[in-house]
Amino acid sequence: MSADRETNLNHLKLLVRDVPDFPKKGIIFKDITPLLKDGPALRFACEELAEIFKPVKIDQIVGIESRGFIFSPIVAYLLGAGFIPVRKKGKLPAAKEAVSYNLEYGEDSLEIHQDAINRGTKVVIVDDLLATGGTAQAVIHLVERLGGTVVGLAFLVELVFLKGRERLKDYKVHSLIQYG
Amino acid sequence: MSADRETNLNHLKLLVRDVPDFPKKGIIFKDITPLLKDGPALRFACEELAEIFKPVKIDQIVGIESRGFIFSPIVAYLLGAGFIPVRKKGKLPAAKEAVSYNLEYGEDSLEIHQDAINRGTKVVIVDDLLATGGTAQAVIHLVERLGGTVVGLAFLVELVFLKGRERLKDYKVHSLIQYG
Repeated sequence: MSADRETNLNHLKLLVRDVPDFPKKGIIFKDITPLLKDGPALRFACEELAEIFKPVKIDQIVGIESRGFIFSPIVAYLLGAGFIPVRKKGKLPAAKEAVSYNLEYGEDSLEIHQDAINRGTKVVIVDDLLATGGTAQAVIHLVERLGGTVVGLAFLVELVFLKGRERLKDYKVHSLIQYG
Repeated sequence: MSADRETNLNHLKLLVRDVPDFPKKGIIFKDITPLLKDGPALRFACEELAEIFKPVKIDQIVGIESRGFIFSPIVAYLLGAGFIPVRKKGKLPAAKEAVSYNLEYGEDSLEIHQDAINRGTKVVIVDDLLATGGTAQAVIHLVERLGGTVVGLAFLVELVFLKGRERLKDYKVHSLIQYG
């Protein structure tokens, strides 16, 4: 890794702030809004997220509502790919596939339009946070059920101690900022 | 307007599909997911949204949860600006300002971090849809309460018959696709 790149990655980490007791007591929330607010840092982060997928022609980037919609569309732009939203229950208007999954703090379900992904389409899933990997795994199921190929997953932040990467071991996983 | 540009804008409009009776009976929902899915169309749309704000140095783009998070971060990237999320109640972790507003189909409130915008910061608000302008007006209040200057607002789709533009008459309003 070049010294410049390392400096920039360290700078990203400094822009993530800890907010104690959010969303509930005892949890330390990793708040990325100071990073988003910083134009050059946001730019660098998105370029880094996109970079390792450039050697392959990626057709579509899948982003996950809501915070996951922030980085993923920029990565789509940078790779010249289309953008596919995976949304919470009841938000997508047309015919859809749904999947249930366990969250870090409960359970939820996610949906994708049935016509979002064509068979054989090369897809990268982009999200802000890799925690237990439950959400990512649910989204992989949705993409594969529609016949898409998941080339990899890219995350801004990885909570290494939650071992999400093990759950996603059959896939290329890329993250910029690691904790633990 | 050049012939090419006009052709591309017409093409965008063809990629928005009508979904009847969503979110409830009698409403025709403008679904932008076919446009998002199309890489070149997404790219063109975002470049068009950003273009008219290039002559001014824009510090930050404000995007509105959730669908509004899709175009706005790309516009931030293109203008070299930071990105500020305005979120639904209870989602932002740090100290915040809130505003209530009337939706087309009900009432809701939106929040912004108090440290999101510095006094005198030049801001553009980007959203996917201009309907009655109620949401946009609420977000303008939030930005101005924090001391930011709203340079303008950019929307992918404008429902002209709902006259949102009249409500925003003190601001520069830009839209790519108009209905009615």
